[in-house]
Amino acid sequence: MNPRLSLNQATVRRADLATALAVTQKAGIASIGLWREPVADVGLAAAAALLADSGLRFSSLCRGGFFTMSDPDARRAAMDDNRRAIEETAALAAAGAPGSAAVLVLVPGGLPAGDRDLPGARARVADAVGELAADAVAAGVTLAIEPMHPIYAADRGVISTLGQALDIAEQHDDVGVVLDTFHVWWDPQLAEQIARAGRTGRIAGYQVNDWITPLPPDTLLARGMMGDGHIDLRAVTALVEQAGYRGDVEVEIFNQEIWDADPGEVAHRVAAAFGAHVGL
Amino acid sequence: MNPRLSLNQATVRRADLATALAVTQKAGIASIGLWREPVADVGLAAAAALLADSGLRFSSLCRGGFFTMSDPDARRAAMDDNRRAIEETAALAAAGAPGSAAVLVLVPGGLPAGDRDLPGARARVADAVGELAADAVAAGVTLAIEPMHPIYAADRGVISTLGQALDIAEQHDDVGVVLDTFHVWWDPQLAEQIARAGRTGRIAGYQVNDWITPLPPDTLLARGMMGDGHIDLRAVTALVEQAGYRGDVEVEIFNQEIWDADPGEVAHRVAAAFGAHVGL
Repeated sequence: MNPRLSLNQATVRRADLATALAVTQKAGIASIGLWREPVADVGLAAAAALLADSGLRFSSLCRGGFFTMSDPDARRAAMDDNRRAIEETAALAAAGAPGSAAVLVLVPGGLPAGDRDLPGARARVADAVGELAADAVAAGVTLAIEPMHPIYAADRGVISTLGQALDIAEQHDDVGVVLDTFHVWWDPQLAEQIARAGRTGRIAGYQVNDWITPLPPDTLLARGMMGDGHIDLRAVTALVEQAGYRGDVEVEIFNQEIWDADPGEVAHRVAAAFGAHVGL
Repeated sequence: MNPRLSLNQATVRRADLATALAVTQKAGIASIGLWREPVADVGLAAAAALLADSGLRFSSLCRGGFFTMSDPDARRAAMDDNRRAIEETAALAAAGAPGSAAVLVLVPGGLPAGDRDLPGARARVADAVGELAADAVAAGVTLAIEPMHPIYAADRGVISTLGQALDIAEQHDDVGVVLDTFHVWWDPQLAEQIARAGRTGRIAGYQVNDWITPLPPDTLLARGMMGDGHIDLRAVTALVEQAGYRGDVEVEIFNQEIWDADPGEVAHRVAAAFGAHVGL
């Protein structure tokens, strides 16, 4: 079992927190990435206690962000919610086993309804990250901006390239990026931007999965298991390693077929595919 | 009616060539972009005669390209086919009304089956363009590399950004790029790369349509009518105008609902949406 493998909870989406922790342990995986909703389902204190009991490391919390709205009240509510997510991240990282990472993944959000001003939405992301950066530093939490595949530029994530995410992250202390192979594999500047992220110490997380074709009808559920698609995962991993990243590597797969399968069986498949295809 | 509007034949896909020419004329549109298959259905000489009789300008031929394969025989066949496409482009441009453009759109092609070497496939595109460039110059044809949305990087077009297309085009005489709003709208470097394309005289075509959400299940048919989606078409058009492009502007929409509609009615909708949303 690769000691750096972490199971992102979204991969076993129908499992509640206790089940997700149990199947991760049983598959011999030492680390887990959590999502806010299943944590909230049991309450933060109980979730932290379950995590501590599991003996697993905590690799990240998904997700903050969604702060592209221009309406002031909606924006304020989003920022308040992100501050709560920072606190949750700190509490869960403290409860995880040694080597846990206090990383909050930020999914930027899309264009507000009826709004076609993409540069404007991108500027609001930069502003929001700047506003949250001090809170994150105070809590000992690293904000990790997730550049998202351009397929999501309209409705989920207006930050479309690693270079663009780094342009924002590098303005602040302790703001990084999370590299997800599904989102970044196509980028002609991938090698140079990963090297840049290493030089400036900004790689806060690395998530693996695959790009499968034909793309499933619901593009939100279009990610495949490592090895099932077109991404040269070993090549991307080598770039991330050369850039000096030594943290946990999460497997995060949104895919209805995988969600429909037994979570315990999925955890075993994840471990096997990770060993066979990721190059670690 | 905007004098620069051109109807790309793919927008009225079920129309044969004669019908496509007729509905274009009837809608008051002065220019048409053709596809090789409906031209081949009637034969090149007959197609050129029909085009000449129509009095319409010819704005481009779709499409050459699909030359990413590594198998030598398959590659040779693809290159031969591209040379035929260059000849077809020259013949149709000569048959079109004054102001016709001898432009062959190149869709690069995806990864060969089972091949995960994206940089390798991209290098083969650059090689193929280099090999065809002299033939194109000799025929008076401009090759127009089409950077494609990263959603197609695996299976249709490994050239994913305008910058990457320009890196290849600028190595040769008379090789340009075609800008399709669906493919490029999300690019954080869009403004600077369009300006670069203008400076180096590389804008060989401009196609408009829209990015709609939710994305239709078949991503190949995911383009929307101008105004129905999230792209700030006026802003993109302004960049293209500032870059000095003064050629025809094609409307190219792959969309089942539009394909199912009456071609004559679609041509009228295209003209109205162009006037309302494109900023020309």
